[in-house]
Amino acid sequence: MEQKIYKIGFIGMGTVGQGVWKHLQNNQDHMQSRFGAKYELAKACVRDVNKKRDIVITAEQMTEDPYDVVNDPSIDIVCELMGGTGKALELTLAALKQGKAVVSANKAVISKYGAEIFATAEKFGGKYFFEASVAGGIPIIKILREGLVANSFSHIYGILNGTCNYILTRMERENAPYEAIVEDARKLGYVEADESLDLDGWDAAHKTSILAYLAHGVWASPEKDMLVSGIRGIRLEDMLWAKENNSRIKLVGSARKYGDSLSVAVYPAILPITDVVANVNEVYNAVALNGDVVGRTIHIGRGAGQDATASAVIADIADALKTLTSGASNALSVAKDEKLHFAALDEISGEFYLRLEIKDQAGALASMASVFASEGISIELLQQKKHDVEGRAWLLLTTHSTNEAAIKRACENLEASDLTFDKPFVLRIFR
Amino acid sequence: MEQKIYKIGFIGMGTVGQGVWKHLQNNQDHMQSRFGAKYELAKACVRDVNKKRDIVITAEQMTEDPYDVVNDPSIDIVCELMGGTGKALELTLAALKQGKAVVSANKAVISKYGAEIFATAEKFGGKYFFEASVAGGIPIIKILREGLVANSFSHIYGILNGTCNYILTRMERENAPYEAIVEDARKLGYVEADESLDLDGWDAAHKTSILAYLAHGVWASPEKDMLVSGIRGIRLEDMLWAKENNSRIKLVGSARKYGDSLSVAVYPAILPITDVVANVNEVYNAVALNGDVVGRTIHIGRGAGQDATASAVIADIADALKTLTSGASNALSVAKDEKLHFAALDEISGEFYLRLEIKDQAGALASMASVFASEGISIELLQQKKHDVEGRAWLLLTTHSTNEAAIKRACENLEASDLTFDKPFVLRIFR
Repeated sequence: MEQKIYKIGFIGMGTVGQGVWKHLQNNQDHMQSRFGAKYELAKACVRDVNKKRDIVITAEQMTEDPYDVVNDPSIDIVCELMGGTGKALELTLAALKQGKAVVSANKAVISKYGAEIFATAEKFGGKYFFEASVAGGIPIIKILREGLVANSFSHIYGILNGTCNYILTRMERENAPYEAIVEDARKLGYVEADESLDLDGWDAAHKTSILAYLAHGVWASPEKDMLVSGIRGIRLEDMLWAKENNSRIKLVGSARKYGDSLSVAVYPAILPITDVVANVNEVYNAVALNGDVVGRTIHIGRGAGQDATASAVIADIADALKTLTSGASNALSVAKDEKLHFAALDEISGEFYLRLEIKDQAGALASMASVFASEGISIELLQQKKHDVEGRAWLLLTTHSTNEAAIKRACENLEASDLTFDKPFVLRIFR
Repeated sequence: MEQKIYKIGFIGMGTVGQGVWKHLQNNQDHMQSRFGAKYELAKACVRDVNKKRDIVITAEQMTEDPYDVVNDPSIDIVCELMGGTGKALELTLAALKQGKAVVSANKAVISKYGAEIFATAEKFGGKYFFEASVAGGIPIIKILREGLVANSFSHIYGILNGTCNYILTRMERENAPYEAIVEDARKLGYVEADESLDLDGWDAAHKTSILAYLAHGVWASPEKDMLVSGIRGIRLEDMLWAKENNSRIKLVGSARKYGDSLSVAVYPAILPITDVVANVNEVYNAVALNGDVVGRTIHIGRGAGQDATASAVIADIADALKTLTSGASNALSVAKDEKLHFAALDEISGEFYLRLEIKDQAGALASMASVFASEGISIELLQQKKHDVEGRAWLLLTTHSTNEAAIKRACENLEASDLTFDKPFVLRIFR
């Protein structure tokens, strides 16, 4: 019997799609021998068939209608690389319902509609693959689901947005302000068209919610269940403070258990320089997992870019081929802890760094201190620094262990008072 | 139809075996829901059924004859956790030939008989699993075989022996000599009964040969095809030199391609402190992989110990259950590069650090220099240091890029000369 040739279709032929196409085309013999199966690059839905591309693709292989891919009965594997959450969901579900394998790099659609997608996949043979959705260069989905399957995770955290890490790395290295570096990152094409996805932490939040789901079986909505803040507002004063205190600022996605409550969050955090994660720079991502059996493991790789993400998509295609050849299911077996609830702010304890823009006048410090005291917040370190503007000063301080609710109230009280010029700027301290 | 309960048998109930048993027993509901399959801890072959153990196990579950496990037709999965290469091979092959799944933590037997084991496994359904054989806490086999399947690897290197890393970490941190720390490590039970496995690099060599096989499809024999040296002979002078040069000494396993030649080796190397791997301390392991598609990825986790290894064995049991329930094969699809050969010494280029114990007399340095010059080796840095013994001096030097053959000849010539008191001590420099 002749060996079946599995047909692969693409929806979306942007940077990642072209990367996958290129590698699968150029190294077909090598890939087939590693996959243990044969494949054909059958069809690709593109936005404009007439656009010039860097890959070898014929007019017959291209279409502008995604349903030419999804509804083609000869296509076995659909790679959804278009992004977005509306049409992507519709096409994903349509492909799954036809029993096709779907490979996706789309963290936004998984974070928002994961429950529906995974349920549909399970119903129709469990053929949904999404390694490329989180930390392209790190096979973290596979590590979490399979390699560390024996573990429950008290804490998962890491650097999940390469663009923000690039910006923070350059700010620190060049002692250059946020706006200048962001502008450079824009020119290099590192910042997504919808800038808020990167800079305000939403992209990292999508990825964090996926990791939290895999570990704990619950879907945290970035808007409703998560603390999400990005890197806007970080100043060189903060970076200098971190440096002087043997630390570094990183945008961190975190899923942490406090007893039966789970805090899923994204925020800039201060990490001790002795933490390997603090030393992961440029566009690299890192994920640290604290498992109850294995202990601490850390994984580092490129966070984005054509090739790192292509590597993950190709790994998923390999897994999809294994599922197709064996008839096995890749359905998730996520163990849900029924007692688990999302942590209320007063359940999330920790130490905090605050930067306040205060009036440089007698009594300001005393009034400030009383705001913290009234919330039961105890100050650990405090430093007043010169401000560029006459009559203002920067006040940098860290707290002893307290909780998110107390910090939130203190910040609101300070903002409402006439003691500060702006909202207090808050960083979480990781130990 | 009632769900099948898969029976698991153990051969070897030492530290790791008891760890696996304990976790599978204590968290059975949770594990079963994550595995998507039911299991029973059916039988364990132990050395002495009367020995007191920390786990809950009945007399009926124990045997002293491994064939009671291997030949029991009701047993689906055999965990080979006995170690060694003779009996372990015989039992592994016997179990595979009966179509059982075999899970192994035995790097020695895989490194020596991998070709035979994998061929037998493939013939009888592809049910051999060995995640725990390399870097227990890091699912590196899965990462290499599956997660990064799209890649060819120009260089894989890492810290693969937790005991040596523990010793080096403490020597450096406490400025304490090798013998004192080794003695401590012995007392803590960190050093294998056959000390040479750890201290002379053979254990790391077994693991490196497994990684090299997975990446390149060729079996490097530690004795015949690999450069293998351990941590004996490292002195505080070397550690101090490394520190002064922003570096750190680690016992490194490395599989590196130079064109069509592959160098598979284990040796203490000098790593720049900016390399994340250099910052992995204590009993932790690290593996850095340079893939042609994904770029550089690094993975860190505990190298040994009951729980880290148990985590890997349990992950393999989960994969074995998936293979058994689906009837799929887990046979390796390793792509072999037919042009690849093991590198001859003159094909392995690099920079070297040498420490020589020389006669502290006029002309010694000049004679020494001419030995290097006659091999075309160019010195980069050179430092003469005080020796405890009158009339002797330490000479520390580094070379510009040269090759292993030239260094070997220079060392032999120095040893044969009357210029030095002992064999030159060599470290490889990683950039």
